[in-house]
Amino acid sequence: MPIGPVYLLFDDGTRALLHVDPDAQGTYGTHRGTLSLAEVLQADVGSVLRTNIGARVRVLRPSLEDLLMRVRRKTQIVYPKDAGFTLLKLGLRPGDRVFETGSGSGAMTIALAWAVSPSGRVVTYEREEAFLRLARENVTRAGFADVVEFVHADASQAIAGGPYDAAFIDVREPETVLAPLYAALRPGAPVAFLLPTTNQVQELLQSLQAGFTDVEVLEILHRYYKPNPARLRPEDRMTGHTGYLVFARREVEGWQEEEKPPVKREAEA
Amino acid sequence: MPIGPVYLLFDDGTRALLHVDPDAQGTYGTHRGTLSLAEVLQADVGSVLRTNIGARVRVLRPSLEDLLMRVRRKTQIVYPKDAGFTLLKLGLRPGDRVFETGSGSGAMTIALAWAVSPSGRVVTYEREEAFLRLARENVTRAGFADVVEFVHADASQAIAGGPYDAAFIDVREPETVLAPLYAALRPGAPVAFLLPTTNQVQELLQSLQAGFTDVEVLEILHRYYKPNPARLRPEDRMTGHTGYLVFARREVEGWQEEEKPPVKREAEA
Amino acid sequence: MPIGPVYLLFDDGTRALLHVDPDAQGTYGTHRGTLSLAEVLQADVGSVLRTNIGARVRVLRPSLEDLLMRVRRKTQIVYPKDAGFTLLKLGLRPGDRVFETGSGSGAMTIALAWAVSPSGRVVTYEREEAFLRLARENVTRAGFADVVEFVHADASQAIAGGPYDAAFIDVREPETVLAPLYAALRPGAPVAFLLPTTNQVQELLQSLQAGFTDVEVLEILHRYYKPNPARLRPEDRMTGHTGYLVFARREVEGWQEEEKPPVKREAEA
Amino acid sequence: MPIGPVYLLFDDGTRALLHVDPDAQGTYGTHRGTLSLAEVLQADVGSVLRTNIGARVRVLRPSLEDLLMRVRRKTQIVYPKDAGFTLLKLGLRPGDRVFETGSGSGAMTIALAWAVSPSGRVVTYEREEAFLRLARENVTRAGFADVVEFVHADASQAIAGGPYDAAFIDVREPETVLAPLYAALRPGAPVAFLLPTTNQVQELLQSLQAGFTDVEVLEILHRYYKPNPARLRPEDRMTGHTGYLVFARREVEGWQEEEKPPVKREAEA
Repeated sequence: MPIGPVYLLFDDGTRALLHVDPDAQGTYGTHRGTLSLAEVLQADVGSVLRTNIGARVRVLRPSLEDLLMRVRRKTQIVYPKDAGFTLLKLGLRPGDRVFETGSGSGAMTIALAWAVSPSGRVVTYEREEAFLRLARENVTRAGFADVVEFVHADASQAIAGGPYDAAFIDVREPETVLAPLYAALRPGAPVAFLLPTTNQVQELLQSLQAGFTDVEVLEILHRYYKPNPARLRPEDRMTGHTGYLVFARREVEGWQEEEKPPVKREAEA
Repeated sequence: MPIGPVYLLFDDGTRALLHVDPDAQGTYGTHRGTLSLAEVLQADVGSVLRTNIGARVRVLRPSLEDLLMRVRRKTQIVYPKDAGFTLLKLGLRPGDRVFETGSGSGAMTIALAWAVSPSGRVVTYEREEAFLRLARENVTRAGFADVVEFVHADASQAIAGGPYDAAFIDVREPETVLAPLYAALRPGAPVAFLLPTTNQVQELLQSLQAGFTDVEVLEILHRYYKPNPARLRPEDRMTGHTGYLVFARREVEGWQEEEKPPVKREAEA
Repeated sequence: MPIGPVYLLFDDGTRALLHVDPDAQGTYGTHRGTLSLAEVLQADVGSVLRTNIGARVRVLRPSLEDLLMRVRRKTQIVYPKDAGFTLLKLGLRPGDRVFETGSGSGAMTIALAWAVSPSGRVVTYEREEAFLRLARENVTRAGFADVVEFVHADASQAIAGGPYDAAFIDVREPETVLAPLYAALRPGAPVAFLLPTTNQVQELLQSLQAGFTDVEVLEILHRYYKPNPARLRPEDRMTGHTGYLVFARREVEGWQEEEKPPVKREAEA
Repeated sequence: MPIGPVYLLFDDGTRALLHVDPDAQGTYGTHRGTLSLAEVLQADVGSVLRTNIGARVRVLRPSLEDLLMRVRRKTQIVYPKDAGFTLLKLGLRPGDRVFETGSGSGAMTIALAWAVSPSGRVVTYEREEAFLRLARENVTRAGFADVVEFVHADASQAIAGGPYDAAFIDVREPETVLAPLYAALRPGAPVAFLLPTTNQVQELLQSLQAGFTDVEVLEILHRYYKPNPARLRPEDRMTGHTGYLVFARREVEGWQEEEKPPVKREAEA
């Protein structure tokens, strides 16, 4: 049994994510009785266990979506629909160094770690100590603690540990981190921003004009269907909005006058 | 300069993907003049080159989206919006073995290879020899030739090389490959299907009821905005449809009566 | 004060629809106290009333959306987003005769009556007596009782009262009413169908090929935004589906062989 | 044959809108030969005509969508998807007085005239004389010339002809017309705004806070399907954006301090 997160699927379709330690003992409580952790430890992925009241549970390998949807959250998390496309746009490979701020609940941190592990590195900044603790806890449960460096800091001051191959920015005022970000990214490195409001997107686009290029703005909508072959139709309700995604690349050296690193916002006024 | 695909970005925003061989010679023609391949070979990622007519070109590392959008295509390709979420649902890790059919133009083959390389393996079946050649050419240009095994075969007969950790199925009648697929997948392994029509989704859902579980159906819509901070608005036109995504997991052993491997469709009638 | 429905808007943004009779007496209970119906009867549209506990209420003229959203419902109602476009496609004018089946809760009946009143006529068929009663009650409250004829009947047998200028069909198996519908519609008359599932749309399209032309299929999505100028963004959740709209025109005489009226479904097999 | 617009439907699915005068003479040219206007004049709605080269044409009554989609345009027109829902929100009845600015190409003018005719009135302001001429021409072809009053004026100065039962505002800076609009609308009257950009919506929402209530912001998406029963699927491309719709009601008298009519924008600064 691989040590780490295990995805449990019950016959009523409910799911749970369980982190298994090598020294796991005692029991794990579910809505259908308790599982012996010792039994889980010996179980194979793809096998079936029974709870103390006889409910059957499939023991499966979690997908990245399973890991993201089951983080304990104190903040709006980055949803799989946005995380999946962002990984593809950032073009992360095992061994890459990637910067993130803010850590939030650590969902996107897990996605970035997934993409650069085992040999890569995620450095994530968070100003709120409570969020940083939560992010570290979620990343650890997902099995990526050794890939991620958690820093209690505000990226608008400075970003250490560069040069980075890519970055993911999810803060209220991303324009305030552009100058340090420019300095910390490799020339041409891709960066993704997630923003809930149109006002923030306008503000960011204005600031990106100095030092960044290849800018794209989009939103992603996922529409789920009721999987009934005789009555195939979309679900009555869907997620209408999580955030806008803005993608750009850090400009390369010696491109043109406007390429000088962006000045701090206060200096702009 | 890393050997392999290079992403070229011109100052008019146009893009190109160039595959660089260690023995690259001569020139590469662009819409803004020609580049010396010898110069490209010595250039650093993140630097600037000039064509023979003085046009400047950024030399960048391609993202997975860049690789997918620039495959030479004779078929409808799998688009990044669908590929990104599918990788996340399949939960592929370096070292995994993944099965695909059909190869088509090889776009999704590249995405799968990206996710399991360097140590993993993609086995892709294609019935049309012309498509198989094209897929091999596109995968080679993307730098993943050594990760992919191309097979000129019809998966409805049998699927060799298992057990597989996951699968991606993009054929006209996916229900015809479910029996061999069940036999070739690890218990609990995730599988993704891409289907253009609602009729095909209904047909597949009907057949999935034997041998597969945890079924989801959705479609993904990407809505792009004009990145103008003073006039932020969506593009006038958007992609209305590429295909429906169906996700499921191969049932585990000994689950219930209906778990017996699905019989061939002709037997169903 | 115009006798009929009155739209009440409270200062907390809540709304109510009140039907005022010329002999209105007593009080009307709201979540913010009671209103004297005698006062309402004397109030002008666009004025303000106070409840017995001092809450202020705007007295307004209801829009068609207000009327539709406030019907008492025992069925899925036709939503304004679908009703508004349907009226425009049916091209209804005052004086037109329009056929509907089934009446359901009467929401679409109100929309049709709105479009053809005062001089026109809506004939609506409903098989369920309980729905027919509810529809009549809702249409009466909306002030259109004198424009609508309610018939307790199944349109698949026959449709009386033609020729009709247009029709709206909202039944489980619309293909069963096509033959009588063809006979009851004027040549070239537009007809709209509302269907929740893709399977029903496929079935209807198959049957429409005989006797109907100019076929369109679409779905309408409404996406609401939080009206906050400093944080403009879509609502987190939206309606993902109500139904598919199919529009067609009854074929004209002597067009071509396939124009013979569609045969009953049982005959098709 | 009713004098006025006639909707022509060819057997290849192409469509045309023809305005028939009582003294129509000569021929009307189509892509499939010419029609004798004298013949059209005598034809019944729902009948078939033949061009001089034998092509058959259905003679039909146009829907409101047919009228809107066939206006001659020099501007972005208001699309049926937005016009249909707007009529429903404005709750227009025959006999109502409605104000519009700007006229643009006259598409929405036709929709408003459709809703209030025969006894109502549309007053439409347009600053560009060329647009005003075009709007008048399109409205006349649609058969509503006697319902509409065209005014070459800028609504930000003053709006004559009130009180109005409703209004539709489609100008670049709608906040500049709010003060005259407040003065010209009946208390509680609904008003609709159409705006292409998020920046404009933010600006308008800011200004609406004085003098208007019951504010809603939404966008409408129409998704068309290929009407093939064996391969039902959405069209590959769809309209991604036309504009944002903002709905509000003119506040009633004596509501609260903020109800004083909005001051001109320059005064706001």
